[in-house]
Amino acid sequence: MTPQEVVAGFIAAIESRDVDAALAFLAADVSYENMPMDPIVGREMTGVVLHSYLDLSTEVEWRIVREVLDGDVVINERVDRFHIGDGWLELPVAGFWEVRDGLVTLWRDYFDMSAYTSQLDALVGDG
Amino acid sequence: MTPQEVVAGFIAAIESRDVDAALAFLAADVSYENMPMDPIVGREMTGVVLHSYLDLSTEVEWRIVREVLDGDVVINERVDRFHIGDGWLELPVAGFWEVRDGLVTLWRDYFDMSAYTSQLDALVGDG
Repeated sequence: MTPQEVVAGFIAAIESRDVDAALAFLAADVSYENMPMDPIVGREMTGVVLHSYLDLSTEVEWRIVREVLDGDVVINERVDRFHIGDGWLELPVAGFWEVRDGLVTLWRDYFDMSAYTSQLDALVGDG
Repeated sequence: MTPQEVVAGFIAAIESRDVDAALAFLAADVSYENMPMDPIVGREMTGVVLHSYLDLSTEVEWRIVREVLDGDVVINERVDRFHIGDGWLELPVAGFWEVRDGLVTLWRDYFDMSAYTSQLDALVGDG
């Protein structure tokens, strides 16, 4: 699989809300970084975090707005969408991915955390 | 000038806190987007916003962590640093730049706004 295919496979698993399938695309020592927070290190801790937000959602769609490849690096602009309660949470994200031997070793996202939490509060409040 | 050189020239002008020199690298109808906020459209409004944060700073340094080129698109991961009062504000940013005819037509940054405002409050409070 190419680096782009690995990232696409991971995102497809996320959209299926299948955390185990998603983790299979990550290296054991993956660094999952929601900037500027401290890295989440390792497949197991990443799975805990993925469950924490995927389990809230009844549907998940990560739309790729732009994707650029550079060797083992995949960069994408996305709109990560989560159906929660009665509505959709939509979060613009910039993702930087490094792939080695068919596994993601770095997954680094930049986004505005308050855009996430304010929408989440509104949707969970609706529920 | 290549797209990379245009972006580098713009950033060098920012680091000199020379807003007029920076604006010379932007198209008249530039779209300046701090995601997920509404776009700031045009060179003039962009200048107003640049003044609003550059004028607070006595030194500015935007460190390029990674830069990837794709035709007329430049993508960079940066740490934007601003010396304000007695300390440095440091903000991790993902930037997406589109260049046409030697001028920036799109400047889109992804970052955590609360990381900016919380540091700014602390530094201005110190002053």
